[in-house]
Order: sequence, then C-alpha cells, then structure tokens
Amino acid sequence: MVVNVAIVGVGLVGSEFIAQVIATQSKKIAVVAVANSRQFLTSPTPLTASWKTDLDSSSASKAFTLDSFTASLAASKATNPTVVLDCTSNETVAAYYPTWLESGFHVVTPNKKAFSGDLSLYKKIKEIANGAPGAPLVYHESTVGAGLPVINTLNDLINTGDKITKIEGIFSGTLSYIFNNFSTLDASAEPVKFSKVVSVAKDLGYTEPDPRDDLNGMDVARKVIILGRVAGLDLTQETVNVENIVPEVLRSLSSEEFMKKLPEFDNHFEQLNKEAIQNGQVLRYVGLVDPVHGKSSVTLARYPASHPFASLKGSDNIIAFTTERFPSPLIIQGSGAGAAVTAFGIYSDILKIADRTQQ
Amino acid sequence: MVVNVAIVGVGLVGSEFIAQVIATQSKKIAVVAVANSRQFLTSPTPLTASWKTDLDSSSASKAFTLDSFTASLAASKATNPTVVLDCTSNETVAAYYPTWLESGFHVVTPNKKAFSGDLSLYKKIKEIANGAPGAPLVYHESTVGAGLPVINTLNDLINTGDKITKIEGIFSGTLSYIFNNFSTLDASAEPVKFSKVVSVAKDLGYTEPDPRDDLNGMDVARKVIILGRVAGLDLTQETVNVENIVPEVLRSLSSEEFMKKLPEFDNHFEQLNKEAIQNGQVLRYVGLVDPVHGKSSVTLARYPASHPFASLKGSDNIIAFTTERFPSPLIIQGSGAGAAVTAFGIYSDILKIADRTQQ
Repeated sequence: MVVNVAIVGVGLVGSEFIAQVIATQSKKIAVVAVANSRQFLTSPTPLTASWKTDLDSSSASKAFTLDSFTASLAASKATNPTVVLDCTSNETVAAYYPTWLESGFHVVTPNKKAFSGDLSLYKKIKEIANGAPGAPLVYHESTVGAGLPVINTLNDLINTGDKITKIEGIFSGTLSYIFNNFSTLDASAEPVKFSKVVSVAKDLGYTEPDPRDDLNGMDVARKVIILGRVAGLDLTQETVNVENIVPEVLRSLSSEEFMKKLPEFDNHFEQLNKEAIQNGQVLRYVGLVDPVHGKSSVTLARYPASHPFASLKGSDNIIAFTTERFPSPLIIQGSGAGAAVTAFGIYSDILKIADRTQQ
Repeated sequence: MVVNVAIVGVGLVGSEFIAQVIATQSKKIAVVAVANSRQFLTSPTPLTASWKTDLDSSSASKAFTLDSFTASLAASKATNPTVVLDCTSNETVAAYYPTWLESGFHVVTPNKKAFSGDLSLYKKIKEIANGAPGAPLVYHESTVGAGLPVINTLNDLINTGDKITKIEGIFSGTLSYIFNNFSTLDASAEPVKFSKVVSVAKDLGYTEPDPRDDLNGMDVARKVIILGRVAGLDLTQETVNVENIVPEVLRSLSSEEFMKKLPEFDNHFEQLNKEAIQNGQVLRYVGLVDPVHGKSSVTLARYPASHPFASLKGSDNIIAFTTERFPSPLIIQGSGAGAAVTAFGIYSDILKIADRTQQ
C-alpha cells in the first residue's frame, strides 16, 4: 500500500518534489493530483514525468477551487492514506488545513503561514492533529531551515521531556549571505560596503524582489514564531521583538529608490561593523526563542570569532538548541533554502507518514 | 495502547532511560521488564521508581539467560508491540537480535556491536527488519553521537534518494576533548603537553580506564563502519584504515606503564601540532566515510581555523554530511556522550516505534 499525495502549488518546490519521487521510483509514495491556482488534475494512477504538460493541456484538468480539488480526492482517500502537500505560500490554503484534517487527509507543507499566523488557526490544527492513534498527521519540517532536521529534532526534544532553555539561529539564507560577507574577522577578506553586498545578493537572486522584505526581519520572525510554538509558547507577531534593519527613512520609498539611496547608509552599517570587529566579534542577524525569560526576538547581534555563528559560510542556516540535556547546544547547520533541500524535507516528512500509516 | 519496553542492561544509560520515562509520565511507553547479567524481573504493570530494589531483592526475580528472558516476554508481546532495548555493549546480546526480530519484537539499542561487527549479522538484521509493512523495526540512533540526530538524518537522506559524497566527523567525545585542548589557534590558550591533556581527560573520567582504548581509534572505526553501512557500503574492520596514535613501543605496556611513558612522546605530538599551527591549522582525530573513492578511514588530520571542526569545544561531537543536495555540508554537532543524551536518543527511537505501531 502506498501513500497518495495531492499537491497544491507546483512551482519550483512542488515540481522538484515530484521529480525526486519519480527519480527514486518510490514504492511508498504516489503523486495522484496536482493543482496550480487555475486548474487541477487528478489521476487514478501515479502521475508521470509528463504531469506538467498534462496539467496545462489535458482536457481532464478542471477549474481549481479548494472545495472542488478536495472533493476530487474522495476516491484516493477511500483507497489509501492521502497527504495534501501545500507547496504554496498562500494564507487561504493554510486556513483550509482544518477542513482537510477533519476529512481525514494528512497535511505536509513548507508553507509557514498556518504555523506563524493567526494563533487560533494553529491551535485548531494541533487540536485535530493531536497525536492520538488514528488522528491525522501534520509535518512541516521545511518551514524552518528547509530540509535541515530542525522541527523533527525539536519535537524529539520536547516529546522526551527535555527542557528548552534557548533556541537561537540564523534562519534566513539571504541575511546569512549578507552578513557572512559583510562582517568577517578574516583579515584576508576584501572589505565591502553594505549596500554593495545587498545589491550583489539581489543580483544573485538570493533576496526577495525587494530586499527590504528580507531586511525587515519579518521572515525570520515567522520562523521564530514557528519554533516557539513547537516548543510550547504562544508566540505571535505582536510578542516577538523584531529589529527592522532597513533605515527608517528608506522604508516608504519605491523599491528602486531604496536601492539607490541605500549607499547613503553605508557609514551607519560600517560603524556597527567596526565596533564589532574591534571587539573580536562579527555581526549576525539572529532569531531567538527564549522561554526562560519569555523574550523572543529578531536582532542584529554580535558573536565572537570562536562562536559557530561567526564561522558560517555562504548562505547557510544554523540553529542552536540549548536544553537541560544539551547545556553545550545541539547545533544543526547547512543549506536552508532552495528547491532541492526544501523538497528533501517534504519527501522525508511524507515517508514518515507512510511509515506511520502502514505498520 | 502503549509500547512495552523490556530492557537488557540497566547500568547508567538503562537507568537514566527509565528515569526519563517515569519523569515524563509517558502515555506511550511502559517499561515491563529489566535485566542485568544475573537476573531479570518482569511485571504486568509498568515498573515504577523502585525497579532497582525490586530487581535486586524481589523474590519474583529470575535467573537471567537470553532464552528465559525472551520466553518471559510472550505475554507482553501478545498484548502490545514490544521493544527489546539492549543497553549493554555485549556481543552475545547483539547476536541475539535476529532471534528477537524473528519472534516479532522490535529492537532499539545504543550497543554498536551488531552494526559494526560481523557483516553477516548486520545483513541478517537488515533482511528481517526490511522496512516492509508489518516487519519488525530496529532503531539505533544512539550508536553514533548519542542522541544527536545522526542516524535518522542519514536514513532520511538515503531514503529520499540523495547521493552521499562524504561523511566526516569527530565521533569520540574523548578524542574531541583531547585535541580541542591540545591543538588550538586561540593565542590566549595556555600551551599544554599531550600527555598532560590525556592524563586530565583520564582523571575527569572522559577516557576508557586505559586511554589507549580511545587513542587506538577502534571506537571511532566502529562508528565509521556503522555510518558507512547505513549509507549502503559493506564496511568492516578490515576495510577501514585506522591510524592508531598510540606510539608503537607503548602498545604492549601495562596501562600504568603506558601513562608513565607517554610524556616521552610529548615532543612527537608537539611537533605535529607545531606543523599544523604554523599553517593556520589544528589537529583533529576524524572518521571519514568516502563512498566516492571507496576509502573510509580514521586519521589524525588538519583543519583550517575557519572549518567547523576547528572551533569545536569541550567534548562535543560533530558530523558533516556532504551530499548531492548539500554540497555545502549538513552539519550536526553537540554532546555525543553521557547517559542523559544517550537515553534521549533511545527515548526518541522508541517513540518513533510507538508512532509507527499505533496509527
């Protein structure tokens, strides 16, 4: 018996996941439905490599609504455990999870919205997917650090009764890249201006179309909220203190004007960097969950050369769990963005559901 | 329904596991049997905090043999999924896993012997615990890096079709401690003699009673073999190249004589260290699985200051998985020894079995 997978959202990540499943000839997973925002396609047999053409051109494709898509999965669910995989970043799709779960579907997603938005939605999801035997399953490893084993490790710590003292990390590949390059103790590195690093990151496609959507810390805040909630804290956008590093006067400009004016603030960032370097430290943009002091935040902080955050490279993510059992923290680092590693996290999650529904 | 757990070996790790289960009032796990090398105790109800006294004094305790212990678990297995937890480091117990698995027990263990010894035993175990629906389950997270999510992450990479290019790490808390202290680029650190670091590590209880059992690399080799096998390689003691750093003339001495003579080789280690430091590098004792070149080894190697292995602290373990999807490696680090974190790995493994047998 296989687990059927119905995918909403077939952009880079959704497509890569299907490619990985096809390439590995998985005996445990069959992709039986795909949907974009306009139409969807369901199939009684596993979809093949031609799924994209079929979805776009097939006369079998139907107009997409969440309700019509869900209704079309009734036959799948009657035969096999069925996972809805949400590869959108859409809030409306996230709000639909309770409906899927109550109808007996499992949910897997890299979409952060359900876990970092409205707290009542999150609680409703946890209430239905409550871990009781037979209850539907929700996995969202790829919402933080893509495929890095972050959420599953945190769940293992919590479920075995460890006490979390602190969760601290660099959760944005973009901001990792920017500060790893801007702020370094490596004397052989060529000094660069902050605006230049941002502009290179933008050209490399590492930033959002408007880099202020990275620099304002909102994406990192979402990850802090997710980690905090998994750790049992009722975090919301209101209770996480976010240091927006976009200079105030640049916040209301057009995206183009912002990039043009950013160099005027190079001195500001250079000053911060100089103060750090003079103390043998580097600047890193970090998210913090602090259950002990009840303070969770996103800040531009300093770390000494010997700290693992200081030697981070490229656009890697890093996360450190300090707990009762791990006073010297359990640290996980590596690539935390990109289709291949995000799809890996999704694939692992779905295999866990396959294993849990087939024993 | 709970998962019943029958424990063979109730030393530090076994006792700590029971303490964690009792402290967390687990609703998923019931410890129903405990055994030491002399006797065992089974109970129709979950064992309580008085288990140790009961095992030692109870008239219900019976003489231990693997067969009699197993026979006494028939009632448990008839009622609930039952895990045999091997907390010994015994080879004979490891050789019994196929018998347990063929009788329908699941196996969880931090005992390295079955996974790093006789290859035919390993293959037999994998043949029975083959992942098919209904097949018995084997989890051994704590055989490498204690509770660090090493084996489960490697399994996730493999099961989703990633290609492992290299697995490299510091897998011995003892050798981590010794070289983190002996070889450092931190100019403010007081220089120490190699024999002194070994002797301090011994006094702290970090080493085996005879430190040569750490310095000979055999324990690290076992971990390399385990990781290699999980990654699909047929590694054995014969195919892993191990650099025994115990000077040859000290190998046949008594343990006492060894400690007395080791200072005569301080110059040898100091010379190695000086060569590294002059090149901006440090010495680290690492295990390597290299599927690409078919070379797996344990060696005293050098790493530059910017490498994550160079900034390791205390007795932490670290492991780096370089794969097709993670060309910049996925790295996990933290405490890799001690009862609390080893029991954490065991507890997580058993919860996974609980989840897989109760859906």
